[in-house]
Amino acid sequence: MVNETQHTCSASSSSRSDGGSSSGSESSKDNSRCSTPVLDADRHERLREKMRRRQDAGDKWFSLEFFPPRTANAAVNLISRFDRMGAGGPLFIDVTWHPAGDPGSDKETSSMIIANTAVNYCGLETILHMTCCNQTKDDITGHLQKAKRLGLKNIMALRGDPAGEEWEEEVDGFNYAVDLVKHIRSEFDDYFDICVAGYPKGHPEAESYEADLRHLKEKVFAGADFIITQLFFRPETFLKFMKDCQAIGITCPIIPGIFPIQGYHSLRQLVKLSKLEVPQEIKDVIEPIKDNDAAIRNYGVELAVSMCRELLDSGMVHGLHFYTLNREVATTEVLKRLGLWKEDPRRPLPWAVSAHPKRRVEDVRPIFWASRPKSYIYRTQEWDDFPNGRCLGNSSSPAFGELKDYYLFYLKSKSPREELLKMWGEELTGEESVFEVFTCYITGEPNRNGYKVTCMPWNDDPLATETNLLKDQLEKVNRRGILTINSQPNINGKPSTDPIVGWGPSGGYVFQKAYLEFFTSSEIVTALLKVLKKYELRVNYHIVNVKGQNITNAPDLQPNAVTWGIFPGREIIQPTVVDPVSFLYWKDEAFALWIEQWAKLYEEESPSRMIIQYIHDNYYLVNLVDNDFPLENCLWQVVEDTFELLN
Amino acid sequence: MVNETQHTCSASSSSRSDGGSSSGSESSKDNSRCSTPVLDADRHERLREKMRRRQDAGDKWFSLEFFPPRTANAAVNLISRFDRMGAGGPLFIDVTWHPAGDPGSDKETSSMIIANTAVNYCGLETILHMTCCNQTKDDITGHLQKAKRLGLKNIMALRGDPAGEEWEEEVDGFNYAVDLVKHIRSEFDDYFDICVAGYPKGHPEAESYEADLRHLKEKVFAGADFIITQLFFRPETFLKFMKDCQAIGITCPIIPGIFPIQGYHSLRQLVKLSKLEVPQEIKDVIEPIKDNDAAIRNYGVELAVSMCRELLDSGMVHGLHFYTLNREVATTEVLKRLGLWKEDPRRPLPWAVSAHPKRRVEDVRPIFWASRPKSYIYRTQEWDDFPNGRCLGNSSSPAFGELKDYYLFYLKSKSPREELLKMWGEELTGEESVFEVFTCYITGEPNRNGYKVTCMPWNDDPLATETNLLKDQLEKVNRRGILTINSQPNINGKPSTDPIVGWGPSGGYVFQKAYLEFFTSSEIVTALLKVLKKYELRVNYHIVNVKGQNITNAPDLQPNAVTWGIFPGREIIQPTVVDPVSFLYWKDEAFALWIEQWAKLYEEESPSRMIIQYIHDNYYLVNLVDNDFPLENCLWQVVEDTFELLN
Repeated sequence: MVNETQHTCSASSSSRSDGGSSSGSESSKDNSRCSTPVLDADRHERLREKMRRRQDAGDKWFSLEFFPPRTANAAVNLISRFDRMGAGGPLFIDVTWHPAGDPGSDKETSSMIIANTAVNYCGLETILHMTCCNQTKDDITGHLQKAKRLGLKNIMALRGDPAGEEWEEEVDGFNYAVDLVKHIRSEFDDYFDICVAGYPKGHPEAESYEADLRHLKEKVFAGADFIITQLFFRPETFLKFMKDCQAIGITCPIIPGIFPIQGYHSLRQLVKLSKLEVPQEIKDVIEPIKDNDAAIRNYGVELAVSMCRELLDSGMVHGLHFYTLNREVATTEVLKRLGLWKEDPRRPLPWAVSAHPKRRVEDVRPIFWASRPKSYIYRTQEWDDFPNGRCLGNSSSPAFGELKDYYLFYLKSKSPREELLKMWGEELTGEESVFEVFTCYITGEPNRNGYKVTCMPWNDDPLATETNLLKDQLEKVNRRGILTINSQPNINGKPSTDPIVGWGPSGGYVFQKAYLEFFTSSEIVTALLKVLKKYELRVNYHIVNVKGQNITNAPDLQPNAVTWGIFPGREIIQPTVVDPVSFLYWKDEAFALWIEQWAKLYEEESPSRMIIQYIHDNYYLVNLVDNDFPLENCLWQVVEDTFELLN
Repeated sequence: MVNETQHTCSASSSSRSDGGSSSGSESSKDNSRCSTPVLDADRHERLREKMRRRQDAGDKWFSLEFFPPRTANAAVNLISRFDRMGAGGPLFIDVTWHPAGDPGSDKETSSMIIANTAVNYCGLETILHMTCCNQTKDDITGHLQKAKRLGLKNIMALRGDPAGEEWEEEVDGFNYAVDLVKHIRSEFDDYFDICVAGYPKGHPEAESYEADLRHLKEKVFAGADFIITQLFFRPETFLKFMKDCQAIGITCPIIPGIFPIQGYHSLRQLVKLSKLEVPQEIKDVIEPIKDNDAAIRNYGVELAVSMCRELLDSGMVHGLHFYTLNREVATTEVLKRLGLWKEDPRRPLPWAVSAHPKRRVEDVRPIFWASRPKSYIYRTQEWDDFPNGRCLGNSSSPAFGELKDYYLFYLKSKSPREELLKMWGEELTGEESVFEVFTCYITGEPNRNGYKVTCMPWNDDPLATETNLLKDQLEKVNRRGILTINSQPNINGKPSTDPIVGWGPSGGYVFQKAYLEFFTSSEIVTALLKVLKKYELRVNYHIVNVKGQNITNAPDLQPNAVTWGIFPGREIIQPTVVDPVSFLYWKDEAFALWIEQWAKLYEEESPSRMIIQYIHDNYYLVNLVDNDFPLENCLWQVVEDTFELLN
């Protein structure tokens, strides 16, 4: 919002229709008693309801503003930042709208697609900015329809910068933010939550501070739900503005925009764009240290912390909105010092939920995508219904999306090719070198060239804390060619608040069946199948190769629940299953990752590439479930018996 | 079938169409992956498939024939017999069709309604006999449609006894069983499994044994799935018949009809009706002991056992069909001596399943009707869908049936008024006399007049084995006016094969949350509510009086799963829930039982009746769930704390 402007000419005020409920089904709360047990009220609430609930509870919050990246690589980095900063618990993030950057397009760097990623893949409540000047009504309606289709539920309605030097009002066009607010309400009823911009010092183009306040009131009365302000340098600026708003009857939430100064140049540029004046006392401090980035940042953090404290202490402010400039350090530091950064180890479900409204009933996923949730979300984005309770997929949503898109930018490895080669080997000498890579990933020890293996084609992050519980056994089996890509220990009723394996509301108990998934040679599979006969009633298995040859003892095509929770006053939740049908879709993805992520690092026809190709063509993907969760996990014994049989 | 006859004139043979699959959705197997986890393959199989599976597995079976009762009281007794004899594991039962008894009507004694009760309320696979002579096509179609609507899936197609002395073929009428078979197949496609009658000695009216065999073949080729034979006295009679059938190309199952001789007169009558001749060697034994019922029955059992053994040993017989004459002792004795009577303590679900095809996905019920499953089935019979997984009730089946019918004959107490008065008190002197009745029911001790209390208005049977686990505590609280009507202990992962609390396939684990439901005074409720504050997070409660004043701490209107099971390779099953919505329907029924079953035993205005009326008007119905199933049940402590607070 920093560099977006708003015109101040008057537009007739129209009060918002509260008469009917929304016509869009997405916005109506699901009242059916058959819906998923409400584990997390948040998933069902609109942003404005969340804001109200937090305010009523006296629970302070923060939000984060980002702008869309310029390049695909920058987009990958921004998405990682969403994940990291999302962990601190923002109430929402917002993504600015850059008319010059084709903001409504399908490009991976567009405002629309970045906001889509934040909502759907990072599970963040997201506001998409949208400007209206120099655009046709059809363009704007198209953008809004697309936003709705993608699951976006909140719009920041702005005028935007006029294209020419001298801006002229267009007849029947969108000249002011208030026109956009009215348009959204008339075309989309109550579907979107709408945010508008407030200017604590008055809009630079406004006739006067008072006239600007009146325009703000018009925007609110046209249907805006809350206000985020332009940045300001002194707390009293905001507090006066807030009182003045209240005095003329603006009662919706007003959220102060906070800009932690992070560097001399970014400050100067920002000030120029926003036509604000930096107070002399700040200039006096900054000018002498203008070449010392660290010093400026420290000062910026101090200043922001003290201003935020004053705002919060006033009792008038319940949330703070941060202009991050897509940077992490300063904002995170301010939030931590304010005690607002809350990394909640408690998860509503064992996997990260998506914020798309149509996924809010989703409470079951196959275990296979545990390390690739974004891929799972991507491949099921066309589903009309989401698994709720025991129903995985259904007649209207029969299949997973094609694999052809798995190289999409948000599924790309965060590491560049050179780094991957260092981790996975510049030159492979045989299958054993592959075993070594897997083993190093498990142990965290450096490989023979001194590099740590921090990611694998099937997992872009280091080993999960939970998997660490199995580290010793995993190391042993990977060394011998049981190349594990997914596993979980058995859990027999740990409290739902357990910091490692807990999830869901407190007072509950969580359970797991032991799970192990790996690639291995056909020689080992042959021995394994003999061993599994002894475990026939206890262990369920699926064994498949790239050609789809499939060996299983699963009864019918029934999914096997491997993670479930029992909570006070609720039905049972079983969020993770081993599902025989989706395993065959996962199989395609899991095998393809050998080639796409690993083999293709090497020259065609090179020995290294041929080794990976050989594994891809000949190995099997195996998953094992130990159904006897109250007993000691028998899967390690199964593997041991297999090795023994081979010797 | 014993007293039904079949004409032998020829009718053109027509082979059965196997071309298309059934058009009726009830008969097509549900292949959706969203259906309930298959715990019990039986629930999804047709009778002919069950027969085939048992035969393939070399698993011998038996079935039982009953005729409809004459009076409503006899119907109540017959239904109890269904429950008792059903426990021995018949593959099916069948109910004969008595044209003189208005067999297709809604009378509680009609063939149709008795078969309906067997299927829906007793959960028995049932064949309804149907005769066709002297009936119009419309009558017959009407009967078949009604049978289908009621959930009956199997028809025994018979000609029936002609009305007049001299029977004449009607043009375009149903003259032979084969006409009925063809009609069923043409009007109902493959919906029904069809059984026809075979006559090991040839039908008495047939031209010849050979001609009768040809007619049987016609019935089979017209679409019959299997044959049950008329009774016979020598095993070789059946074995010859079977070989003769096979020789002319009859390949479907042929089930011998076994008649254990139970008395001199019943044998004579049967022989007269069936026009069979009793072999001399049997006459020679029976005549001298004709007045000694016990001796004849012993002989009959011996004879039946030895004949059945010979049949089974022949390797040609896989199942035995018993003509019970609605009696229990002889048939049960024969079955036990043959080792075919198998009381399987293992239950597919914690409650008795219904055999109606539309209920085969049902796998959740509210706990409230645990002791009144027939009432629950009755009150939900109009539902279009049945709870499957976590969905209890839904938009198309929003409510429970009206209470007005709860006095229906199969919900009636088995005990007559005089007996109930002895158990529950000829004269009540105050609320304490009511406490005493409850206490005697729990302890099994005789009441002050020396009578054992073996049933209560809310439970027509003595205390369940599982409830016995709680006996001591239940006794203590009932003495003090916590009048318990339903309870279960907490269970933290017992094997699914546990003889008392187990259910579902082997290899699984079952769990329960402790549950306690009782009536109590408003004084106790006031104290209880204070105590419950201490247990706020642990105990969920619903407290309601007859007027519907309702106090609860249940989150939203979510059901609380109180019984669930974890099985190898399957999703989680949660067959019993405490559901806040259905509790209010149950409340009406539970309070009404005070009046309908208890108060009405006494004269109007009598002190005894007024005491029950007072309790009905003033007491509360309370249910408590202890969510912390791994810990020791705290509900006894809650009650103890309540009594302490009162002192």
